Amino acid sequence: SNNFFLLCGPCAIEGEEMAMRIAEKVVSITDKLNIPYVFKGSFKKANRSRVDSFTGIGDEKALKILRKVSETFKVPTITDIHEISDAHMAAEYVDILQIPAFLVRQTDLVVAAAETGKVINLKKGQFMSPESMKHAVQKVLDSNNEQVMVTDRGTMFGYQDMIVDFRGIPTMKQYAPVVLDVTHSLQQPNQSSGVTGGRPDMIETIARAGIVTGADGIFMETHFDPANAKSDGANMLHLDHLEKLLTNLVAIRKTVNSL
Amino acid sequence: SNNFFLLCGPCAIEGEEMAMRIAEKVVSITDKLNIPYVFKGSFKKANRSRVDSFTGIGDEKALKILRKVSETFKVPTITDIHEISDAHMAAEYVDILQIPAFLVRQTDLVVAAAETGKVINLKKGQFMSPESMKHAVQKVLDSNNEQVMVTDRGTMFGYQDMIVDFRGIPTMKQYAPVVLDVTHSLQQPNQSSGVTGGRPDMIETIARAGIVTGADGIFMETHFDPANAKSDGANMLHLDHLEKLLTNLVAIRKTVNSL
Amino acid sequence: SNNFFLLCGPCAIEGEEMAMRIAEKVVSITDKLNIPYVFKGSFKKANRSRVDSFTGIGDEKALKILRKVSETFKVPTITDIHEISDAHMAAEYVDILQIPAFLVRQTDLVVAAAETGKVINLKKGQFMSPESMKHAVQKVLDSNNEQVMVTDRGTMFGYQDMIVDFRGIPTMKQYAPVVLDVTHSLQQPNQSSGVTGGRPDMIETIARAGIVTGADGIFMETHFDPANAKSDGANMLHLDHLEKLLTNLVAIRKTVNSL
Amino acid sequence: SNNFFLLCGPCAIEGEEMAMRIAEKVVSITDKLNIPYVFKGSFKKANRSRVDSFTGIGDEKALKILRKVSETFKVPTITDIHEISDAHMAAEYVDILQIPAFLVRQTDLVVAAAETGKVINLKKGQFMSPESMKHAVQKVLDSNNEQVMVTDRGTMFGYQDMIVDFRGIPTMKQYAPVVLDVTHSLQQPNQSSGVTGGRPDMIETIARAGIVTGADGIFMETHFDPANAKSDGANMLHLDHLEKLLTNLVAIRKTVNSL
Repeated sequence: SNNFFLLCGPCAIEGEEMAMRIAEKVVSITDKLNIPYVFKGSFKKANRSRVDSFTGIGDEKALKILRKVSETFKVPTITDIHEISDAHMAAEYVDILQIPAFLVRQTDLVVAAAETGKVINLKKGQFMSPESMKHAVQKVLDSNNEQVMVTDRGTMFGYQDMIVDFRGIPTMKQYAPVVLDVTHSLQQPNQSSGVTGGRPDMIETIARAGIVTGADGIFMETHFDPANAKSDGANMLHLDHLEKLLTNLVAIRKTVNSL
Repeated sequence: SNNFFLLCGPCAIEGEEMAMRIAEKVVSITDKLNIPYVFKGSFKKANRSRVDSFTGIGDEKALKILRKVSETFKVPTITDIHEISDAHMAAEYVDILQIPAFLVRQTDLVVAAAETGKVINLKKGQFMSPESMKHAVQKVLDSNNEQVMVTDRGTMFGYQDMIVDFRGIPTMKQYAPVVLDVTHSLQQPNQSSGVTGGRPDMIETIARAGIVTGADGIFMETHFDPANAKSDGANMLHLDHLEKLLTNLVAIRKTVNSL
Repeated sequence: SNNFFLLCGPCAIEGEEMAMRIAEKVVSITDKLNIPYVFKGSFKKANRSRVDSFTGIGDEKALKILRKVSETFKVPTITDIHEISDAHMAAEYVDILQIPAFLVRQTDLVVAAAETGKVINLKKGQFMSPESMKHAVQKVLDSNNEQVMVTDRGTMFGYQDMIVDFRGIPTMKQYAPVVLDVTHSLQQPNQSSGVTGGRPDMIETIARAGIVTGADGIFMETHFDPANAKSDGANMLHLDHLEKLLTNLVAIRKTVNSL
Repeated sequence: SNNFFLLCGPCAIEGEEMAMRIAEKVVSITDKLNIPYVFKGSFKKANRSRVDSFTGIGDEKALKILRKVSETFKVPTITDIHEISDAHMAAEYVDILQIPAFLVRQTDLVVAAAETGKVINLKKGQFMSPESMKHAVQKVLDSNNEQVMVTDRGTMFGYQDMIVDFRGIPTMKQYAPVVLDVTHSLQQPNQSSGVTGGRPDMIETIARAGIVTGADGIFMETHFDPANAKSDGANMLHLDHLEKLLTNLVAIRKTVNSL
């Protein structure tokens, strides 16, 4: 259908019930809209601002929930890894391994992920130019894995704000399929509270601009109760708003395809 | 028609023949596409990097050419002013007075322009937040002139690059109609040569993102021979590419209007 | 004495009494410390965030106060100009004409100032690289005026913060004597209130770093009552703290001279 | 002596001979100048731009060389770790464990390092504000380890440049002793070649500003043949220039101590 694809789910796997509930809803929407869908969930959160932040429910437990989502709804899944030893473990449960933005320069981690043979999603560091992602992609290719994509999650702009540089989308498409992460691109980091802020009112603005400039996929975190999500609540889209947003994006994509 | 409007022309008025030639072509395209059109041309260039850069053909001479374009093609015109004394002079010849980005914090200049009763186009300083344009707009309103619009021409990102922050478009629409300047937003300033560089390959990327995020107008410089234009050649769109670009933007605008 | 020089005074000339009081105090300190001193005061404020900000007591009136300070205390004076017509007027009263940072790319203004034969102080635009100031300096030299200096007043870092790039001091010393403006370098612009904020607690940090990296002069605004100053109160140094700060800077300068 | 301390050595441990040669020279200089000295060397390089960059001579082999340097010259040593499993291993050989800037948000890694009981050196992420390092320091303290310091290695400024924000030094001194890394602060990342560039001509400028604004320590990479160093050659100080630079810094520190 030449539609964009969607990487979507909660930030962290907080439990089976919530994961299944979110997956079911997103599957029903993406089926209707013919959007290829990948369920996203973190099995642990390793890079929190503060030591008392939520870090997960247990690695194996969370990974098994990801597998259950996949088997129940017949959708592929994606999760992020933080240590070399995570790569092999996570690869047994999910279809796509994601390298977090802070870690995309860690050669050993990228190579370990690539060597599992899974699809690799490299997040552009907030401190990296679009052009420099060429070298990150090359590390995957050099590991005999050609299934690699790149996700833009914004670029640091001063200490407490991020901007999406949309020139990066056509630039990075020269190296691999490009996803726009509309959740983390709207973070406002380094807040004095130690809790990252956000601009959720700008999700649709950024998502539309991503589609119209050629993004192959959209990454988005969603929850039926963002205010009580255990992480990243600041920028999550409420599940109730997902269908309208995706409907708009599909319409824009159809127009772009016709140009 | 609820279409976007277009501010377009050469950077500087280099002479009558070139102004008329560009205007005729743009008018024929915008008539076909139902795009409200304003002819743009600078009567002098005051903020060049180097003293030996081209600064104009003479103020009165250039302004008379703007008037001739207006009368010949029945289109309104816009030009930029740099000194308080320019405001009254230019107001006799053109319909819209533009305050350059570097000068938008000069209260006396903004007020002098506003007091002519002409439409005012305030360019967002490269060093200003979208939110801070509220105060610039207020200076026009406080001068009893409600005809004011705001143009984004990018934001400094490091010394030698600019980024368009598309969050700024819905933000500034709270204050006034918003135009996206796709020519100057792609400048790469502070090059060691003293000549500003650019990314003209990104014009369509940036323009599409502007339309899809709600820009009311597009500002663009064009020339039939950008390489030999006397200023800003680095980012000008070749006149031959204008129709295709605008056709694409109109299609996107129609889709956006339907959402 | 090979000491640094000081450009110092209130932001705006609010009246004769306050100007004389500040000058007298600064003169007594700089005489004791053998610091060549130039009295600084703006005769009008043209680039305020909001139209209701204080803009001055009248041009002639303020310029006459600058002359009186000069004659009374035998010190040179400096003021900033914003329009071409200001250049000739101000040159009759002061010794140094300063081009504000927002205006340093306005060729006509720089040339008009240079042609008065006065010393010219070019402030680096917040959006300019140190290297690009070479072209601004060249505009003065090309106007047959070799008396030119450059002042760093910080560089935009995101929308609401500034950083001083100390690499710029040795870089710009290749073109002209370099002054560090420790008042405006600590501004925090684009605050939602429309009133620029600041970090006055960092004045000594920034000033020390300026001296140790080779600044030829220090620019600083001071007041006996910063909280009630009519402009730029956010970063002014209280006059009572000036002597201790300058004493420390002189000690550092002596050490640097000995290396 | 209330002098600053020095973390210094090659970037990577390329072999025993080179490590011993560099250590011997630095020890002789720092002994003369009464500078407390810690020998620095990476036992592996994990975050290279390209997969074909040099990554090390073998972990155990490199760590044993660090121990030999320590025993031979009676100096403490520091090395950086990249994985949780590195923490325990490296702690057997060195005195200080360093968390790289890209990894300082990885809670598990910081906690694993802290739990070894070794001194921890946290590098400020290029994407972090000075204030946000408070949370990173707190993670070490919460692990019952009070021996923690913070190192500034510059802040991203656009894609291809870094700036040192010297306001960060007094800010971070509120949380822990602060070191200025004058080597990596001068990197120019994201170059199109995939090899990070630099500004080694600015080492003394940045180092002086660090000392005068209160840095407790200086971090610097040095080599007797920077052009042929296997990593980070772009900003290394030639070993022949070290004594003169440190002599100047000691003089500045003495003056600062006396203020």
